[in-house]
Amino acid sequence: MSGVVNCAAYAGGRRVADVEIKDISEVLKQRDRFVWIGLHEPDEDLLRQVQQEFGLHDLAIEDAHNAHQRPKLERYGDSLFIVLRTAQMNREQGRIEFGETHLFVGANHVVSVRHGASLSYAEVRARCETTPQLLSKGPGFVLHAIMDFIVDRYFPIVDALEEELDRLEDEIFGERFSRKTTARIYHLKRDLLDVKRAVSPLVDMCNRLMRFDLEIIPDDTRPYFRDVYDHAIRINEMVDALRELLTTALEANLSLISVAQNDAMKRLAGWAAIFAVPTMIAGIYGMNFRVMPELDWPLGYPLIWALMLGACGFLYLRFKRSGWL
Amino acid sequence: MSGVVNCAAYAGGRRVADVEIKDISEVLKQRDRFVWIGLHEPDEDLLRQVQQEFGLHDLAIEDAHNAHQRPKLERYGDSLFIVLRTAQMNREQGRIEFGETHLFVGANHVVSVRHGASLSYAEVRARCETTPQLLSKGPGFVLHAIMDFIVDRYFPIVDALEEELDRLEDEIFGERFSRKTTARIYHLKRDLLDVKRAVSPLVDMCNRLMRFDLEIIPDDTRPYFRDVYDHAIRINEMVDALRELLTTALEANLSLISVAQNDAMKRLAGWAAIFAVPTMIAGIYGMNFRVMPELDWPLGYPLIWALMLGACGFLYLRFKRSGWL
Amino acid sequence: MSGVVNCAAYAGGRRVADVEIKDISEVLKQRDRFVWIGLHEPDEDLLRQVQQEFGLHDLAIEDAHNAHQRPKLERYGDSLFIVLRTAQMNREQGRIEFGETHLFVGANHVVSVRHGASLSYAEVRARCETTPQLLSKGPGFVLHAIMDFIVDRYFPIVDALEEELDRLEDEIFGERFSRKTTARIYHLKRDLLDVKRAVSPLVDMCNRLMRFDLEIIPDDTRPYFRDVYDHAIRINEMVDALRELLTTALEANLSLISVAQNDAMKRLAGWAAIFAVPTMIAGIYGMNFRVMPELDWPLGYPLIWALMLGACGFLYLRFKRSGWL
Amino acid sequence: MSGVVNCAAYAGGRRVADVEIKDISEVLKQRDRFVWIGLHEPDEDLLRQVQQEFGLHDLAIEDAHNAHQRPKLERYGDSLFIVLRTAQMNREQGRIEFGETHLFVGANHVVSVRHGASLSYAEVRARCETTPQLLSKGPGFVLHAIMDFIVDRYFPIVDALEEELDRLEDEIFGERFSRKTTARIYHLKRDLLDVKRAVSPLVDMCNRLMRFDLEIIPDDTRPYFRDVYDHAIRINEMVDALRELLTTALEANLSLISVAQNDAMKRLAGWAAIFAVPTMIAGIYGMNFRVMPELDWPLGYPLIWALMLGACGFLYLRFKRSGWL
Amino acid sequence: MSGVVNCAAYAGGRRVADVEIKDISEVLKQRDRFVWIGLHEPDEDLLRQVQQEFGLHDLAIEDAHNAHQRPKLERYGDSLFIVLRTAQMNREQGRIEFGETHLFVGANHVVSVRHGASLSYAEVRARCETTPQLLSKGPGFVLHAIMDFIVDRYFPIVDALEEELDRLEDEIFGERFSRKTTARIYHLKRDLLDVKRAVSPLVDMCNRLMRFDLEIIPDDTRPYFRDVYDHAIRINEMVDALRELLTTALEANLSLISVAQNDAMKRLAGWAAIFAVPTMIAGIYGMNFRVMPELDWPLGYPLIWALMLGACGFLYLRFKRSGWL
Repeated sequence: MSGVVNCAAYAGGRRVADVEIKDISEVLKQRDRFVWIGLHEPDEDLLRQVQQEFGLHDLAIEDAHNAHQRPKLERYGDSLFIVLRTAQMNREQGRIEFGETHLFVGANHVVSVRHGASLSYAEVRARCETTPQLLSKGPGFVLHAIMDFIVDRYFPIVDALEEELDRLEDEIFGERFSRKTTARIYHLKRDLLDVKRAVSPLVDMCNRLMRFDLEIIPDDTRPYFRDVYDHAIRINEMVDALRELLTTALEANLSLISVAQNDAMKRLAGWAAIFAVPTMIAGIYGMNFRVMPELDWPLGYPLIWALMLGACGFLYLRFKRSGWL
Repeated sequence: MSGVVNCAAYAGGRRVADVEIKDISEVLKQRDRFVWIGLHEPDEDLLRQVQQEFGLHDLAIEDAHNAHQRPKLERYGDSLFIVLRTAQMNREQGRIEFGETHLFVGANHVVSVRHGASLSYAEVRARCETTPQLLSKGPGFVLHAIMDFIVDRYFPIVDALEEELDRLEDEIFGERFSRKTTARIYHLKRDLLDVKRAVSPLVDMCNRLMRFDLEIIPDDTRPYFRDVYDHAIRINEMVDALRELLTTALEANLSLISVAQNDAMKRLAGWAAIFAVPTMIAGIYGMNFRVMPELDWPLGYPLIWALMLGACGFLYLRFKRSGWL
Repeated sequence: MSGVVNCAAYAGGRRVADVEIKDISEVLKQRDRFVWIGLHEPDEDLLRQVQQEFGLHDLAIEDAHNAHQRPKLERYGDSLFIVLRTAQMNREQGRIEFGETHLFVGANHVVSVRHGASLSYAEVRARCETTPQLLSKGPGFVLHAIMDFIVDRYFPIVDALEEELDRLEDEIFGERFSRKTTARIYHLKRDLLDVKRAVSPLVDMCNRLMRFDLEIIPDDTRPYFRDVYDHAIRINEMVDALRELLTTALEANLSLISVAQNDAMKRLAGWAAIFAVPTMIAGIYGMNFRVMPELDWPLGYPLIWALMLGACGFLYLRFKRSGWL
Repeated sequence: MSGVVNCAAYAGGRRVADVEIKDISEVLKQRDRFVWIGLHEPDEDLLRQVQQEFGLHDLAIEDAHNAHQRPKLERYGDSLFIVLRTAQMNREQGRIEFGETHLFVGANHVVSVRHGASLSYAEVRARCETTPQLLSKGPGFVLHAIMDFIVDRYFPIVDALEEELDRLEDEIFGERFSRKTTARIYHLKRDLLDVKRAVSPLVDMCNRLMRFDLEIIPDDTRPYFRDVYDHAIRINEMVDALRELLTTALEANLSLISVAQNDAMKRLAGWAAIFAVPTMIAGIYGMNFRVMPELDWPLGYPLIWALMLGACGFLYLRFKRSGWL
Repeated sequence: MSGVVNCAAYAGGRRVADVEIKDISEVLKQRDRFVWIGLHEPDEDLLRQVQQEFGLHDLAIEDAHNAHQRPKLERYGDSLFIVLRTAQMNREQGRIEFGETHLFVGANHVVSVRHGASLSYAEVRARCETTPQLLSKGPGFVLHAIMDFIVDRYFPIVDALEEELDRLEDEIFGERFSRKTTARIYHLKRDLLDVKRAVSPLVDMCNRLMRFDLEIIPDDTRPYFRDVYDHAIRINEMVDALRELLTTALEANLSLISVAQNDAMKRLAGWAAIFAVPTMIAGIYGMNFRVMPELDWPLGYPLIWALMLGACGFLYLRFKRSGWL
């Protein structure tokens, strides 16, 4: 059936059978089994079918169909509905691509629904199957495995954003800033806000998962959620630090632009003065007064050259010394 | 009666009768019925009449009459008084128009009072009547339906504000900013603050509705209020992200203006220098010294032209290379 | 006695007698009576006398005498001591005048002590006396009436500050800003901070009044304090929104000043170039070289005029087109 | 013994004896007595001796010896260790001098240890001794008296900082700002942060003192700590308001500097244009073309003067009208 | 074994034996003993061995192996896993070097695992061994000793950052700022954020340690953790104050750059005017009108010199007086 990526039954931490959606009820008649289904952008029919198999709540199914939810954790009786935002770096375009994963977790099932750009959870499934002693803890552990996988994908993204900030710092303080630097600062800020909005709800969600008194999250899985919680907090802190640095970088940029302007103005002033002096002197000896004794001096012309060059040289040295040129 | 948009009695999720205000007490004698009344800018008489029918509190009625309240949720014994701000985009004028809706919700009634620009709730009523199984949950569900409708109207508004920010970004980073860009940034900020003030109290209100131990909000309606809560939080987050981006945009704008100023100044300086050199040279050979050998050289004039053009050309190339022109 | 504005005994919501301070104990011997005293800047003797009549706490009396307290609510056993800041717009000087009112509220008394610029509470007393059914709730209701009166006086002030912001916006975005605009932004900020400090403690005070388990605040007066609470929150929110807008306005102002500076510089550069060209050309043909063929052309002079005018015209058009002039 | 400023035993609110450190245990054998010791920068021996007399905790003694603690309140069993920062205005140097006072308060003792610049508590002691009915409440009241004394010393300091801000406002808005204004804004900020750090922990400390269930703080002393609490909050609020105003002042300063720059540039541009016009005209009639009819006109020279003066006058008036000059 | 820095058994506060990792179980058979092991960047084998000896949790061991954790405190049953960031000033490079220490604390063991730049805890061990009465409190006291040691290492770092700010202030307000000043402000900000992230989690961690109801932290060790808590808060406050001052310094810097720009522009304008006047005058008397009476005056030339010098002198004095030059 299109949209179903994987659907298998597990018992005692081991995969016991691949199942069809329609056979699920049959399979679950045996106790201590749970079914782990992976869906990718399923159509409404498929979702309705899954809903009936596990008795999921209408509102949750609607959310899973519509996507564009914010990350959240909702408890419906003994089962959980979880929305997470996934992220991947599109290296070619230098953009972060966000996707969405919805999880239904109950005593005998884990259903993951992926939307948009997102990695398959085949890797998570494979890794879980190699550690049967952990997988035998049931759907709660699968939930942890998927959350852990999603959160860990944010680390390379934050690293990429940190590198971008490093490059921006080099531009700003290396006197190579341009209009583009400002635009890139702005877009980095935008990316940071997006990552923040995707990750920050996770902190509260993990917190609640650790405190829930739910059969599907046994006591010995809690440290694992604390682990995810730690990672989410770390990403949050890194993003916050980046935002604060970025704000400072923008201000530093502004003040360096002003310094540059200052320097340009001083140079302008300096050279204007150097040109103005001989122009003024030449103007004076271009006057047509009948009686201008200097004009008749045999050495008048060379003297005036000396005066002009001397004045220019004096100004040049003075400006040079005071750092204006 | 003017001001009454709709007034009907419901039983078991179905509309059983249209009623006149004055007949309400009669109709409500039958158990398991509730009345849903829609009023639009009612006069005081009408409000007093409704107050008497359901025994509403004086203070709530005063609020409903005066309007200009902030969104709030008040509990009077077993009934609720709710104030919400509605919003609509006036596409023609590019302005957001805010209205106000006051809701009185009790065990056997829902009264909505609309003020100012706001859509009719006829659509909500129609939609509710198509799902009798939900409407049979009673006034609590009607309350949810109206709140959901109001909150959902904010999404297109926030989208419009996001588009406005996108347009502003294009202007700022596309070197097409002007005085108007700054004014538009300011007005976008103003709109965001207005939306924020209208939506942010909803988060707390939904939270309290989910926790209230009230007969009119049965357990199985709570997930619906959680849904409204989620939407309110999402709008809040979008608005906060927009505000932060806007602040950064304003700063980026300022720093780009400084860069532009810098560029203008460099150009000014460059051209000033290019003009100053031949002026100075010409001034020198305009002096009237008796003895100025160059003036008598046959090739003096062409040589001076060559000197002036050479100097200008040299300066032009140098400024061009260092990016000043 | 100087300082006593009004002193009357109430029973069952009606004024039963005007009393002298010294007769209070006598009057209060009858049960279900309470005394409402209004004082204006009383001297220490009067305060001590009042203190003895009702057994008020030393610290509260000291506070009431010294004034210059921040708004606060203190509970001494079964009675309350409340400090509020009142505000009035002095339209002539365009300044906000703050005063202070101290209230002692006990089972059988309400004492109000006014300091500085403040309206008399005669109006509150008159209004209360017209609704005996409410006034019969006792001192708790009187407390509400006075708080409500004081809080409502802040609305016209906030409105005046909003108008001032509107005027500032017009100046800033209408290109009519000046040194005074910045000074006015600053003073508006100062006023907003003053109003904030006067009103924000009220939110917490009303909150505590609603939760106190005090005989003088019966259950059915609580909605009235919730009303004051709502108003205080609304003023707070309005002030906060104004502050945020003001910050943005100050930044917008700064960026518009930079834009204006930019425009001035471009104009300066443009006109400088237009003047520099003919000056340079004229300088060249003012040189005294023996051999300068153009000087002997019969049409040399008109041609040079054409050249100069042409260059100036070309530059003028080009600058005009690129928006520099 | 050096370091001991005062050491006396009190009973029933009255000083009963001056005691030597070594006799303390003897004196305290009588019940209902407490000892109040004032130390100033004691050496380690003296501190150890006091420690043994009252059985104080090692860590507290270490703190009292090292000083440079932040204000804090620690409970060791039934006794308290309190660190406070004192402040004094050094009027001559215009600087705030901070000191530190450590207090050990137990059922039968109050030990104050002063470090750095700080007033003696002789005044507090004298004032307490004049009100035996209050002093008889025991060490808890002495603690209040000292805290009250310390907090009240901050009011003149905050007043001095407010005056400094007023002076800065006058400079900024009176167009008399200079490099020094900015430096003074910065140093005012620094002072405000220091005061904030010294006072803000007091709010929480008083709060805890009011809630402690300690024998040494009887119920009827609590209103007195509430009083200190109020003062601490007021100073906090004043400092916060000053900080916010200062931030705005710094921004206003920046924008006024830009306005001033704008004005300077406009003047520069205006006068440059006024000088450029006659220079250009004179240049033209300084050309050496053979055929320049104007040169031969008898009225050519006066006409050119008229032209030059007319052009300058026209420009002057125009710039004057548009506010550039 | 490589990676093991020190491994000893303690009883009654005294070191009773140096032990090999493999003999630990043997040694711990005797009651009232605990083992204190110091590891430095251990390989996985060693960690696994230690894990088996004390039954440590898988997740904690993984963390200790991977490092790059944020400071945290995790409770696994009766034992604790603690991650701390250590810091050292690299004086030569003027950089702060961060390291990481992981601590496993149980009833009979303390295991410290150091990563990256960090001082050995040999000093802590030595100091603990000199105070057997304290060391006899067991692993809880060792934990305190190590935390105290780590936190105290931050004080010289914060002092160094304060000195850097002082130097920056001198540059900014001493008119010696340059591009490098801005870059150094930025890097100071970056360092402050790093220190903040390393220290701020400690406040919460100490708080939890004081409240834990754990056998390994007996009641009489709690004041010691309160001590660490105080230090962590003090460092936090110092860092926060530095950050706020730095922000103000950056703004002050920007406004001083603008002032400097202003001054440069005024000077430019002043000198331009002084040069422009004689140039203009000379231009006028360089015109070739046939009739220019002044040219024939015998004193024309000296008079014109007087005029030019007079005008320049007048302008110079005027600009000097108004502070433009």
